[in-house]
Amino acid sequence: MTDAAPARTLRIRLEFDGRGFEGWQRQAEGRTVQAELEGALARVLGSPHTVVGSGRTDAGVHALDMVASFRTDHTMAVAELGRALDAVLPDDIGVHAVEDVAPSFHAQRDAVWKWYRYRLLVSRRKRPLLRHGAWRVPRLPPLAALEAAAAPLVGTHDFRSFANTGSSPGASTVRTLYHVQVGHTAPYTTVDVVGDGFLYKMVRTIVGTLIAAAEGPDPAAAVRDVLAALDRTQAGRAAPADGLCLMAVALSGESAPAWVPSALRPRLESAPPTARTPGGTS
Amino acid sequence: MTDAAPARTLRIRLEFDGRGFEGWQRQAEGRTVQAELEGALARVLGSPHTVVGSGRTDAGVHALDMVASFRTDHTMAVAELGRALDAVLPDDIGVHAVEDVAPSFHAQRDAVWKWYRYRLLVSRRKRPLLRHGAWRVPRLPPLAALEAAAAPLVGTHDFRSFANTGSSPGASTVRTLYHVQVGHTAPYTTVDVVGDGFLYKMVRTIVGTLIAAAEGPDPAAAVRDVLAALDRTQAGRAAPADGLCLMAVALSGESAPAWVPSALRPRLESAPPTARTPGGTS
Repeated sequence: MTDAAPARTLRIRLEFDGRGFEGWQRQAEGRTVQAELEGALARVLGSPHTVVGSGRTDAGVHALDMVASFRTDHTMAVAELGRALDAVLPDDIGVHAVEDVAPSFHAQRDAVWKWYRYRLLVSRRKRPLLRHGAWRVPRLPPLAALEAAAAPLVGTHDFRSFANTGSSPGASTVRTLYHVQVGHTAPYTTVDVVGDGFLYKMVRTIVGTLIAAAEGPDPAAAVRDVLAALDRTQAGRAAPADGLCLMAVALSGESAPAWVPSALRPRLESAPPTARTPGGTS
Repeated sequence: MTDAAPARTLRIRLEFDGRGFEGWQRQAEGRTVQAELEGALARVLGSPHTVVGSGRTDAGVHALDMVASFRTDHTMAVAELGRALDAVLPDDIGVHAVEDVAPSFHAQRDAVWKWYRYRLLVSRRKRPLLRHGAWRVPRLPPLAALEAAAAPLVGTHDFRSFANTGSSPGASTVRTLYHVQVGHTAPYTTVDVVGDGFLYKMVRTIVGTLIAAAEGPDPAAAVRDVLAALDRTQAGRAAPADGLCLMAVALSGESAPAWVPSALRPRLESAPPTARTPGGTS
């Protein structure tokens, strides 16, 4: 690295199978996606680089399209860098694209919303060919009851009841959810959650709470009560990590990725201003 | 086991993830599905039982619905036996059903046809979340060329060119294929092969040969030449095992499983008489 300010900001889009990782963020012990990516960059570019992710993912959680960024002086063409990283990275991390972006781009600050999908597989029998990437449950409440339970979560709320210990104490637990949608994409029942940010294990705690609430007589009232309690012990158990996948990240000033269903595309103008960086990518 | 003839014949439908197995058939070394199943039966029923499979599957090949049968004196109810086996078997084998069938039922003799599906994933990039259960290739010839290459395989032929070493020497290499169909089920390109029987690595060699033939100027003629050569060296390379799955087995005198698409249901009356056992299940 030279002493001059790095000349370029590069953005990387990544897919990873979360089962082999202690989550995204580099830590003293344990295999993480960030550490693998930084190790690959050091090998390919010949010097250490620190990457920023669009957010942390928890241990065991997957990503179809994680966004990361870093600054560098290196002049390697993006297509060549993408191929070289893909070749150096292990089988459970893949590079979708490397792009030159505006110098001010920052994968975390410019993430306007994230779409997570939780997959549930309803089966009393074991399903060996579908045993990864979903949570197998013997039964589920009716979809209509799950939908009723989901409705009160949409909007800006203090999600303290859904924040597992491990979230930073004192930090705000207010988040905005644009969509919480229950659906079915055979063979899976899916819970799609789109929001401006998420607390530790928040999506998985939402899934566990929706199921518990939908089993009761008034699912919507049960979830409203959990929200109002501001008490983690009132929510359901966090669903297992293997069912959760970060599907897409929307970036300030850019269209959502093409594969995001229109029903899940929140209007960017409804995003809180703090999440929108005027100096972001064009 | 008593000296009297076993009182019952039971049929087991199984799903397995083939990656951890040296195929179906019990052998001196290596983990096999048959050996795991026989071990589970011995644990649950308290005595050794030998199972018959509807066919061998090669090392690493998956099954969505393998059929096996065995005879026993034990009186345990089938639902209880199914649950007990599912609990005792490892994560990569699951029991779909255990059924009482006619005493003469024999999973191998009563298998009229089998449907295998090969999945191809076209992607230049690594796809960590889709890296199992399909063969990733950077490109494929057009579907129409693959379909043209597949057509000459349908019918009764000597498939010696598609029989890898390891097939029993001297045994007949004549088989009947009812369908060889190329399709697309997002995100996979699929090759469905329905036939009365298959030689060692035959489906995977067909897939490799179709791709090679479809890259040439006359795919159908190329495949006809391979068939006529009766020479393994003329066929393409066998595609990797991880892309292949035994989808369904049709049994003499019974309807094909409900999930078999109508296009893949050969008329049972067109099956060769030798594969149809009049004393089969009703």
